[in-house]
Amino acid sequence: MAVVKIGSVPIGGKEIVVIAGPCSVESEEQLLSTARAVKKAGAGVLRGSVFKPRSSPGAFQGLGEKGIGFLLKAKKESGLPIVSELMDSSQIFVLQDAVDCFQVGARSSQNFELLKRLGKTGKPVILKNGLGSTAKEFVSAAGYLPPEKAILCLRGIRSFETETRFTLDLGLIPVLKKLCDFPIVVDPSHAAGKRGLVPALAMAAIAAGADGLLIEAHPSPEKALSDSSQQLNFSEFEDLMQKLKKVASAVGRKI
Amino acid sequence: MAVVKIGSVPIGGKEIVVIAGPCSVESEEQLLSTARAVKKAGAGVLRGSVFKPRSSPGAFQGLGEKGIGFLLKAKKESGLPIVSELMDSSQIFVLQDAVDCFQVGARSSQNFELLKRLGKTGKPVILKNGLGSTAKEFVSAAGYLPPEKAILCLRGIRSFETETRFTLDLGLIPVLKKLCDFPIVVDPSHAAGKRGLVPALAMAAIAAGADGLLIEAHPSPEKALSDSSQQLNFSEFEDLMQKLKKVASAVGRKI
Amino acid sequence: MAVVKIGSVPIGGKEIVVIAGPCSVESEEQLLSTARAVKKAGAGVLRGSVFKPRSSPGAFQGLGEKGIGFLLKAKKESGLPIVSELMDSSQIFVLQDAVDCFQVGARSSQNFELLKRLGKTGKPVILKNGLGSTAKEFVSAAGYLPPEKAILCLRGIRSFETETRFTLDLGLIPVLKKLCDFPIVVDPSHAAGKRGLVPALAMAAIAAGADGLLIEAHPSPEKALSDSSQQLNFSEFEDLMQKLKKVASAVGRKI
Amino acid sequence: MAVVKIGSVPIGGKEIVVIAGPCSVESEEQLLSTARAVKKAGAGVLRGSVFKPRSSPGAFQGLGEKGIGFLLKAKKESGLPIVSELMDSSQIFVLQDAVDCFQVGARSSQNFELLKRLGKTGKPVILKNGLGSTAKEFVSAAGYLPPEKAILCLRGIRSFETETRFTLDLGLIPVLKKLCDFPIVVDPSHAAGKRGLVPALAMAAIAAGADGLLIEAHPSPEKALSDSSQQLNFSEFEDLMQKLKKVASAVGRKI
Repeated sequence: MAVVKIGSVPIGGKEIVVIAGPCSVESEEQLLSTARAVKKAGAGVLRGSVFKPRSSPGAFQGLGEKGIGFLLKAKKESGLPIVSELMDSSQIFVLQDAVDCFQVGARSSQNFELLKRLGKTGKPVILKNGLGSTAKEFVSAAGYLPPEKAILCLRGIRSFETETRFTLDLGLIPVLKKLCDFPIVVDPSHAAGKRGLVPALAMAAIAAGADGLLIEAHPSPEKALSDSSQQLNFSEFEDLMQKLKKVASAVGRKI
Repeated sequence: MAVVKIGSVPIGGKEIVVIAGPCSVESEEQLLSTARAVKKAGAGVLRGSVFKPRSSPGAFQGLGEKGIGFLLKAKKESGLPIVSELMDSSQIFVLQDAVDCFQVGARSSQNFELLKRLGKTGKPVILKNGLGSTAKEFVSAAGYLPPEKAILCLRGIRSFETETRFTLDLGLIPVLKKLCDFPIVVDPSHAAGKRGLVPALAMAAIAAGADGLLIEAHPSPEKALSDSSQQLNFSEFEDLMQKLKKVASAVGRKI
Repeated sequence: MAVVKIGSVPIGGKEIVVIAGPCSVESEEQLLSTARAVKKAGAGVLRGSVFKPRSSPGAFQGLGEKGIGFLLKAKKESGLPIVSELMDSSQIFVLQDAVDCFQVGARSSQNFELLKRLGKTGKPVILKNGLGSTAKEFVSAAGYLPPEKAILCLRGIRSFETETRFTLDLGLIPVLKKLCDFPIVVDPSHAAGKRGLVPALAMAAIAAGADGLLIEAHPSPEKALSDSSQQLNFSEFEDLMQKLKKVASAVGRKI
Repeated sequence: MAVVKIGSVPIGGKEIVVIAGPCSVESEEQLLSTARAVKKAGAGVLRGSVFKPRSSPGAFQGLGEKGIGFLLKAKKESGLPIVSELMDSSQIFVLQDAVDCFQVGARSSQNFELLKRLGKTGKPVILKNGLGSTAKEFVSAAGYLPPEKAILCLRGIRSFETETRFTLDLGLIPVLKKLCDFPIVVDPSHAAGKRGLVPALAMAAIAAGADGLLIEAHPSPEKALSDSSQQLNFSEFEDLMQKLKKVASAVGRKI
């Protein structure tokens, strides 16, 4: 299997990598404190979005370019490489010098023009599956990226069940590993939609063979400007990391 | 309800408008013959894509700028206004002088940045629902467009049923009419995925209150470079138009 | 295509049959007044359940045997044949002399033992599709019934959309007509779940080729003990029948 | 949380129980050899069906009463308590003296009459979720059983994804534990539909908090009369049990 590096952190090797951080970058203090907390607990990469694709035009759309300075500062202070999301090729230019890896969300997962352009930046891309996309379509979409730069992220699909925000089938981890050579990470935060469900899905993802996790963490989730109900606070995150290390060890890997 | 004009053709008034043409523009002769045939049968708008969002990087991606000349020629000859699809804001510039209306497909339906930019062109936009989007999310996404320029197009969602290509719930027509003021058109061709199912869905859409239809027609569907199995040939299209006129009349409208 | 008779009423011929009545039989007066109203408006068969499969053990479970007397009285007075639902083979014995046709609901649609036993009664059976069943599984389940006695009823499936109660794909009408020879009726009431959406789906079903409709009607829907939000009152039902007749005529059939 | 006993084996306590055996009882030798193999590997309960709900009338329907003798012999020889499936209340009488626990499958999961009757036998019931049922409906259906006798089994739902047979959301384990007090077991065999995917889902289920697993095992899966592609052979089963013990230990439980 291919190993893809985010900064100097290999994804897809024996070590499982936790990519953590807030849903949206909201302030310098919010991002720096999160970077410190997740690094201390064992995260290998920092995530934080400055552009947010919000279903409603009235919702918080992210700090935009202003947030990029915070990302750079957090990277410098923590030493963690940075992942950030974008939705349109017009955002590549402003993000590409700041981030170590791009993230393409579910709603852009079949924006093939965007994927082609990202491929030319030379940076790795975490591509999430579309809410209405099959595993085969997911792998096909990744074909628009350079094979040595693609990381697939399972984040659940739309089904009729509403107790979880999206329906995450972890049986797709071995399916994807058979269909392609890309590292597979899992986003239990968006799949669950409720912080109380995140630990079970995160542990299950490791047990099912995931190469990494994307977990949302925030100093005060109840005050978050987006995804308030699914972000973990620092103590919940630290507690979860302890559990994940045990499960990783049980399946012959480490975090 | 708002009436939105494509060229001089009003969508959302008493008259039901059929928007017809090939999936992809493939050649001048293909497009011109289709324009003539659909106009003669009663279509009010010509559709034809020069950019195609294909799930696989190896599939036919459209003629691109070369096809735009064919669209302009077809418009001039037939007098029909033109609708064409785009997937990325970089395509706005090359399309905007040629088309009377943009079409945004399911895979771009939540590309909010694209929608905002299209809003600034002053041209109407036919926005299709996402494969994994709810009716409410569909209406929210349309909120990124100027209200007087948005036309919603139902094209079915993903479900577990595979006998039809997508699952089209026509009960959403009255739902959308309650949730918003936009004209509602229906795309039976993509929903059905098989030409034999298109007439039933097209007639049903009119009976359920649709303001218009998007129907794929092609001189020789079996030779089409995309969506071969769902395009109607000219005689099938003409036959369907006769049936649609009767159903429209039964619900107090006309085509 | 096979024509199946409910009493003396043929289903699957040129004439489209409307099967109407309350969700649950609640009282003699409720059932008799409904029988008179739906007959006057043009319905051909009366429906009314005395056994109700309710998701929750605390909900109204139907009048049981007590309701059968009301069904017989309504049949005698109106001359309409009777359809009633059952969920378990233990209910066959008490229902079989009273009804002209059994109805098997979505939750029992793959109770193959029940279907085999119903087949031995010699009475026709309206079989609804399961909420999680494909068209092919639906036709397979009908294979447990005698072919000359099976009527298939489309009532929608579960999808992620919640604006309609279930997701009804009318493109399955031509699909089923190709896969089998059974008459196909449609239940717009359960699919819609809201009375305001029933007319659009009912008209659309006729336009798409349905051989009949199951429509819930009640003297005072707001007081109904089950399915309160989706039953039509008599004036709404009569109004809808007028519209259905026009659509039927537009597709070369009559009601 | 309630602990429910199958024979003398408690489900829902600290110990995780693996319920294993063939999909269908096919012969004495097949069942006895399976009982020996799964017991030796650490299974606590033997499963095997003599009645099979098959989507098609032509498929193998199970050995029926003839198979019951084999179940009793396997129980006597192995000491393992027995779980077997039924679909109709007419099957209760012949099964109830032989089995220690009934299993109700997805297709009968809302056969409330059957559930009420099973409740009167005094035996525990493993109730699987319906293919089109929500978590809340699942818990409601279990309300038809005596609370001290119900065991819920997650086996996946229908979604548009076809790489796995059904879509299993393990985030529903903590959801169900919040909604009710019943022990929760998981059936990775039916969810996966392919033996290669069973281990990942089984390990993930334990990591997510399942109280037990239902796993199909067969001496020669390629010759099985039903579910041939998803049953494990003895060596695969034994290998999986070793892995499950490690994951159980990592989450503070044991098998």
